[in-house]
Amino acid sequence: MAKSGFAGVLVPALTPFTSGLDPDRAAWLAHCRWLLDEGADGLAVFGTTSEANSLGISERIELLDYLVDEGIAADRLMPGTGTCALADTVKLTAHAVRRGAGGVLLLPPFYYKGVSDDGLFAAVAEVIERVGDAALRVYLYHIPPVAQIGYSLALIERLVTAYPDTVVGIKDSSGDWSNTSAVLRALPQLAVFPGSEIFLLDGLRAGAAGCITATGNVNPAGIRAVYADWRGEAADRRQARIAEIRKIIQAFPAIPALKAITAACTASPDWRLTRPPLKMLGESQARRLLDQLQAVGFSMADNRACHAA
Amino acid sequence: MAKSGFAGVLVPALTPFTSGLDPDRAAWLAHCRWLLDEGADGLAVFGTTSEANSLGISERIELLDYLVDEGIAADRLMPGTGTCALADTVKLTAHAVRRGAGGVLLLPPFYYKGVSDDGLFAAVAEVIERVGDAALRVYLYHIPPVAQIGYSLALIERLVTAYPDTVVGIKDSSGDWSNTSAVLRALPQLAVFPGSEIFLLDGLRAGAAGCITATGNVNPAGIRAVYADWRGEAADRRQARIAEIRKIIQAFPAIPALKAITAACTASPDWRLTRPPLKMLGESQARRLLDQLQAVGFSMADNRACHAA
Repeated sequence: MAKSGFAGVLVPALTPFTSGLDPDRAAWLAHCRWLLDEGADGLAVFGTTSEANSLGISERIELLDYLVDEGIAADRLMPGTGTCALADTVKLTAHAVRRGAGGVLLLPPFYYKGVSDDGLFAAVAEVIERVGDAALRVYLYHIPPVAQIGYSLALIERLVTAYPDTVVGIKDSSGDWSNTSAVLRALPQLAVFPGSEIFLLDGLRAGAAGCITATGNVNPAGIRAVYADWRGEAADRRQARIAEIRKIIQAFPAIPALKAITAACTASPDWRLTRPPLKMLGESQARRLLDQLQAVGFSMADNRACHAA
Repeated sequence: MAKSGFAGVLVPALTPFTSGLDPDRAAWLAHCRWLLDEGADGLAVFGTTSEANSLGISERIELLDYLVDEGIAADRLMPGTGTCALADTVKLTAHAVRRGAGGVLLLPPFYYKGVSDDGLFAAVAEVIERVGDAALRVYLYHIPPVAQIGYSLALIERLVTAYPDTVVGIKDSSGDWSNTSAVLRALPQLAVFPGSEIFLLDGLRAGAAGCITATGNVNPAGIRAVYADWRGEAADRRQARIAEIRKIIQAFPAIPALKAITAACTASPDWRLTRPPLKMLGESQARRLLDQLQAVGFSMADNRACHAA
């Protein structure tokens, strides 16, 4: 099978909005550049954390074009392209490949429930066949807590067997280490990315390729440091530190929390805005989050070379 | 508040596909015409049963254009326009209003889970404000078994209060009569459509406007007859009959089953095709379904003036 072009720490970049709730392209570009400068190995733009599922098909296409046109290296991008609808998934995936994206992160079609592995296999196969491009690299996006529909191990095995040069990786956001380790054991050739840095060091020791994590939006350098020297002496201590920060953040609604932190770091209040149905963090909640982070010495100013300053 | 332009039996028309899995427009148009000829009071095209969530945004726009251009009265159409993404929902809704649709059936944004009523209110409000057309009539689409995200009674009341001239109805596909009757009691001015003919007669007696039901695709005249004379002597007998047929069908996967019946009625095997992730009924399953229907005297030929013949 083909080797994954991605390894390390990938970040599902947040999508900032203007006060009119349209994507703020300039702020987004600055954030993406900052993440790469901080050491992110790739950007999984249009992930769950990116509120991609609240972005229209045309918006996603225009935003990807913008990022690549502005000089972000396309092979560092792993845009989310899986939607409910076959036609839209094909359109987004084909466009990503055309623009040179290093891979796509593929949600299964998630509207209809109680569907079979046969049906999901056919859905992914149809996308691969319709895109029909040898350059396509698919990373399966398994996030059953949100999408409800996921990729079973049997289904992953079937897809990898049928499309060994295309289906090269998986993001496992099940939050279930036993699932991640079962995939690692069964398919050592697959690039497995746990969906949280909580599992980064254990993952690397078990053969994972890295992680793709929401918290990378605010702590990219800290998480990258674990990956950079995961066989080193400091690895466990660094892992404990990133886990400490993660646990503070995940006690809040994740996306609004990450946006509130970014707003504080960049002194840009609009960064707090989310598109409905998500609600931004209230003032007092945001204050509490920032205080808790400061209490453990997570300094906004130190951690982040405030790109908007 | 504005009065609903719809009452009676609405059918979420099935979407036939070609062997290449693209929408078969001609077969679709013929089916829609047949449904109206059989007495359907309206067509809720692009519903769950229509596999609309497997259709792309552009496909939905082109299909609606086609139907209206071919002379189907737009005010009989209640297209589904709710998607995960604000921008796409606005695009589909604005287009439906522009083409003269009598209303739209609005799923809430359904990707993100655990969202608040505040967030869902903001999502619907944003759609209404962005469309900004006094002609818009919204029917809320409550189908928590599939979408997972639904409209609580408190949320419905808030929306109706905020937009009395726009939010005029609801399709309740919860399958939970206690929910439907609670909505009927709390909001007698709302046009309430249970999402199954099982609740048709009880619903009408409790003030419902009719029903919007998948099974209407194969038994429109039978269901319409209950509505036409629901105060009459024959109503209970007719209701028992449509419930008998419904119960046979719903023991099978609903959409593939309805397509298998339509394929048999029209002698068009391709009608059985579904888009992935749904799988069409296998031969033996289809045979069993048709046999069971025949055993209770539900004759394909009699029931249906086979439009493709």
